[in-house]
Amino acid sequence: MTPEALAARVGESMFAADRASRDFMQMELVSCEPGRAVMRMPVRECMLNGHLICHGGFIFTLADSTFAFACNSRNQVTVAAGCSIEFLKAGKLGDVLTCEGVEQMLQGRHGIYDMKVTNQRDEIVAMFRGKSAAITGQVIQQP
Amino acid sequence: MTPEALAARVGESMFAADRASRDFMQMELVSCEPGRAVMRMPVRECMLNGHLICHGGFIFTLADSTFAFACNSRNQVTVAAGCSIEFLKAGKLGDVLTCEGVEQMLQGRHGIYDMKVTNQRDEIVAMFRGKSAAITGQVIQQP
Amino acid sequence: MTPEALAARVGESMFAADRASRDFMQMELVSCEPGRAVMRMPVRECMLNGHLICHGGFIFTLADSTFAFACNSRNQVTVAAGCSIEFLKAGKLGDVLTCEGVEQMLQGRHGIYDMKVTNQRDEIVAMFRGKSAAITGQVIQQP
Amino acid sequence: MTPEALAARVGESMFAADRASRDFMQMELVSCEPGRAVMRMPVRECMLNGHLICHGGFIFTLADSTFAFACNSRNQVTVAAGCSIEFLKAGKLGDVLTCEGVEQMLQGRHGIYDMKVTNQRDEIVAMFRGKSAAITGQVIQQP
Repeated sequence: MTPEALAARVGESMFAADRASRDFMQMELVSCEPGRAVMRMPVRECMLNGHLICHGGFIFTLADSTFAFACNSRNQVTVAAGCSIEFLKAGKLGDVLTCEGVEQMLQGRHGIYDMKVTNQRDEIVAMFRGKSAAITGQVIQQP
Repeated sequence: MTPEALAARVGESMFAADRASRDFMQMELVSCEPGRAVMRMPVRECMLNGHLICHGGFIFTLADSTFAFACNSRNQVTVAAGCSIEFLKAGKLGDVLTCEGVEQMLQGRHGIYDMKVTNQRDEIVAMFRGKSAAITGQVIQQP
Repeated sequence: MTPEALAARVGESMFAADRASRDFMQMELVSCEPGRAVMRMPVRECMLNGHLICHGGFIFTLADSTFAFACNSRNQVTVAAGCSIEFLKAGKLGDVLTCEGVEQMLQGRHGIYDMKVTNQRDEIVAMFRGKSAAITGQVIQQP
Repeated sequence: MTPEALAARVGESMFAADRASRDFMQMELVSCEPGRAVMRMPVRECMLNGHLICHGGFIFTLADSTFAFACNSRNQVTVAAGCSIEFLKAGKLGDVLTCEGVEQMLQGRHGIYDMKVTNQRDEIVAMFRGKSAAITGQVIQQP
């Protein structure tokens, strides 16, 4: 299998099992490639806080999910070892948020991934950086 | 009104408007006091990710909500200016997570608040630190 | 040896070897107790940046050193696994900065330590949070 | 003046006044361009901690200085509003550390800058992310 085909399979398998991202948050997995993933999530009424903007926790959740797909995309089981987020613009009802996660470095078992959340007007809503640590095991069985 | 009565009123008013925390995440506002708030949230099936543990994003969301109540509890409109989180233990199906948020300092318009998320066995699940900035305006009208 | 005597010995031993903290930054190790350390550092002319205030990097350095003493104080070799800092007030020429580091939790091999940097007027200059991970080995040989 | 010439002038002016970076830490300002800066620093004996590696605080200091040059390079006075750092590899005696800081976004008065510290073997030593906020005023008088 090519790395691209493997990453796509890993993404499908993880997404099928991840009811929080898929069913509860209604995220869509747009793509999963080696060291990269893209997810999308609409801002629904149930996600608004008292200021009538999207609760920051759900923007974090979108970025954190995208991080998980990006850092596991090489089929090596990988966990988060730390993260930071900067919120830059509010998410509003009806916005469709897209998060692109990209591997910035992979050195030994540690990686750094940057997730950028934008809205449908290409404005940056948040930037999330995750540090990953590979552990033993593979995400899916390879034939 | 005493500061205690004011904080309780501010909390009730914010919570009534916050459908994300109240309805969608099913949090409970246990208490809102001057510089302090406690919230509670059960881990439900819809919140599990592919590892069958609570998605870290929802633990962040609980802590971020608690932060908002604690830093607005003096009725001065206050926004988040930064945050960091450390995840220490997984949340499991059926766990009831309690988050206590406490003001560590308030110097001019900037404050630091520490949120500690524990489970029903008093194990620490996450620690979140938020930096706040007061802006103009009051949360509720005082009689 | 009592835990108190052991922590004091660990602190002395680490400080003797740490020329960066001791000679270059001219820190003083005020105390090293189980899960707690206090260090002090004067702001000297060589530490000022172009705004004529103490370079934030040296305030970070003071807090990071204090973190190392606090988390190694039980004589278990322990390394930093992450940190965050909030700067709250400038350090000025002639200020004497004191950093107190306190263990907030120790659960298995992971700990959380909070460092608070204050000046001689008890104003908070910075707050630093460190996550630690114990590894194998002891800092000093026990008789 | 072109933006490039202006950035170079701003850099020279800031560096001349910054004795902490220039004299005490012996950094070199390699370049200052619009939204970008590069600095270099040798790891000297005085910078070693008890493990005989470069104190992490000095790596933070290098990245923080580079951040300041990059975010002020458009001649708008700009301050740090938050930062995070991940340490990835130890700095050793005799290493020459290079930090490249690049603007990732600038939206209204807020910007995000990523600093990458590498050694002379191009290994990544640390990654630092800074959030900036422009305030009123210019760094240098324009003719």
